[in-house]
Amino acid sequence: MKELVKLMDYRPEIRVVDATLRDGGLVNNFYFTDDFARNLYQANLKAGVDYMEFGYKASREMFDESKFGKWKFCKDEDIREIVGENKTDMKIAVMADVGRCDYKNDILPKNESPIDMIRVATYIHQIPGAIDMINHVTGKGYDATCNLMAISNAQEKDVEIALELIAQTDVKALYIVDSYGALYPEQIARIMDIYMNVAAKYGKEVGIHAHNNQQLAFANTIEAVGDGANYLDATYNTLGRGAGNCAMELLLSFLKNPKYNAFPVFQFIQKDMMKLKEEGMVWGYDLQYLMTGILNQHPRTAIQFTEEKRKDYADFYCELIEK
Amino acid sequence: MKELVKLMDYRPEIRVVDATLRDGGLVNNFYFTDDFARNLYQANLKAGVDYMEFGYKASREMFDESKFGKWKFCKDEDIREIVGENKTDMKIAVMADVGRCDYKNDILPKNESPIDMIRVATYIHQIPGAIDMINHVTGKGYDATCNLMAISNAQEKDVEIALELIAQTDVKALYIVDSYGALYPEQIARIMDIYMNVAAKYGKEVGIHAHNNQQLAFANTIEAVGDGANYLDATYNTLGRGAGNCAMELLLSFLKNPKYNAFPVFQFIQKDMMKLKEEGMVWGYDLQYLMTGILNQHPRTAIQFTEEKRKDYADFYCELIEK
Repeated sequence: MKELVKLMDYRPEIRVVDATLRDGGLVNNFYFTDDFARNLYQANLKAGVDYMEFGYKASREMFDESKFGKWKFCKDEDIREIVGENKTDMKIAVMADVGRCDYKNDILPKNESPIDMIRVATYIHQIPGAIDMINHVTGKGYDATCNLMAISNAQEKDVEIALELIAQTDVKALYIVDSYGALYPEQIARIMDIYMNVAAKYGKEVGIHAHNNQQLAFANTIEAVGDGANYLDATYNTLGRGAGNCAMELLLSFLKNPKYNAFPVFQFIQKDMMKLKEEGMVWGYDLQYLMTGILNQHPRTAIQFTEEKRKDYADFYCELIEK
Repeated sequence: MKELVKLMDYRPEIRVVDATLRDGGLVNNFYFTDDFARNLYQANLKAGVDYMEFGYKASREMFDESKFGKWKFCKDEDIREIVGENKTDMKIAVMADVGRCDYKNDILPKNESPIDMIRVATYIHQIPGAIDMINHVTGKGYDATCNLMAISNAQEKDVEIALELIAQTDVKALYIVDSYGALYPEQIARIMDIYMNVAAKYGKEVGIHAHNNQQLAFANTIEAVGDGANYLDATYNTLGRGAGNCAMELLLSFLKNPKYNAFPVFQFIQKDMMKLKEEGMVWGYDLQYLMTGILNQHPRTAIQFTEEKRKDYADFYCELIEK
């Protein structure tokens, strides 16, 4: 048992990151209306969310702009269209994938941009690329986090070495990313131990981005909170790739800092998100995602199963274990 | 961190209890077809489930038989219709609520019944009634468990006293029942500590029955496993009152005892449960249940919200906190 007092009290260092547009954009190719983005921004402000992530800074050399909504590219002018000069306490974040971002050209100096933080997403085999990107964006004046993806497939010693390397940059937080929704809380505790050791050594924060394949996104997030994680990703109504993420409404209801308020989240879900479901957008826990989760696989097969509106779960499981 | 070895190994003492018909019956007034019950029985056998709970032994004096399906009453002949003489390793359980069961008349001696175990469900203010029922049914030759409901509303000292009293009977297991889905894993750990102390003193097992209001039914169940609980309730596809329960498919995928197999669960969900959804049966996590969960309230208002097909979540929240 740990940190029981934190259930009643709170840790002011905690930062809640809304990843709805970014991870949700992976469901609908980032085709959100401006009204949706604007209402979400307002809801986040009312809810006391600390960071709002708009989307990716994806390379326009690699990805055809006509095939995606604007939040795949997050041009500064598009963000400004929603937030103006963002004279609020909430900060603006975007994600940049190693190998898929033309960061030298597409990321302007911080003082010319409404963006505050660049979240550098990397696989464990891309660490030098991540470090180069982190150094570049922190050099331009941004805060940065490093989000280590698909960590359930990495060996712990490799994770430790990667974290040691990354922690020597000016990065603010080191993130556990359970991309496949494969981890149990006990494993989160074990991985948090590795992260917290490196974080303590270099004065960094630790973050978590969980997926809900096993209905553990929220549980794993609060496990990590108990272990010392201060950067917490969540999305409204779990909206995100595949099984989705830690639900913002669950997380804000759990956190006891009086600055957080779940009510604007309920309102936004009611007014702006039910509509997405009615229009046929599908996300959230379902058996096909449980299956890729327990098999520690990328959810792409399960996403295809969902898109094809298949319901032959047992057959799908056979396909997965045959591969 | 605890019992990490149990993630890879297993504890042979663990017993999985399928509560699909019983807790699911609270959603559809127990109107399951015989085919559904029979296919579920077969799936449980193939999945290696240890106990199948059929429903309640509800008093026919208090409840009108014409207004409920047969599993509210679980007559021996109805169970035999499904299981024959049940010459299998799986045991048959039914639930009996203190104050709502005519146990002296309706429960026959064990050697005349296909039922193996009576699960006595009690609130903390009904302990003498529970003890009387436990003594009666164990005297008739049944195994018994005691399921302490709505435990999130009870004071810990009262829980301890209640457990001390109950543990002096021939009861087999003492159950945590998080009826409102209000508890976080850290609280489960704390409550498990109380249960395990009494259980060790009297040589009893500890069980858990969780609800999914905060998407924590599975997480709380595996937390309890890590703390020593051996009797684990689950339902197929979370089917159960309100937000539903710990999903059988998640639990069996987690437990590593080779006798368990999640595949028949996938098959049953595909073949027999998708149909229930298509027919309009509604269960599982949704915002209204999160709200009653975080407010530690009975889900009845949220169930009514669901039945009325309301989607005005924010308004519902205002109603809840006004009361």
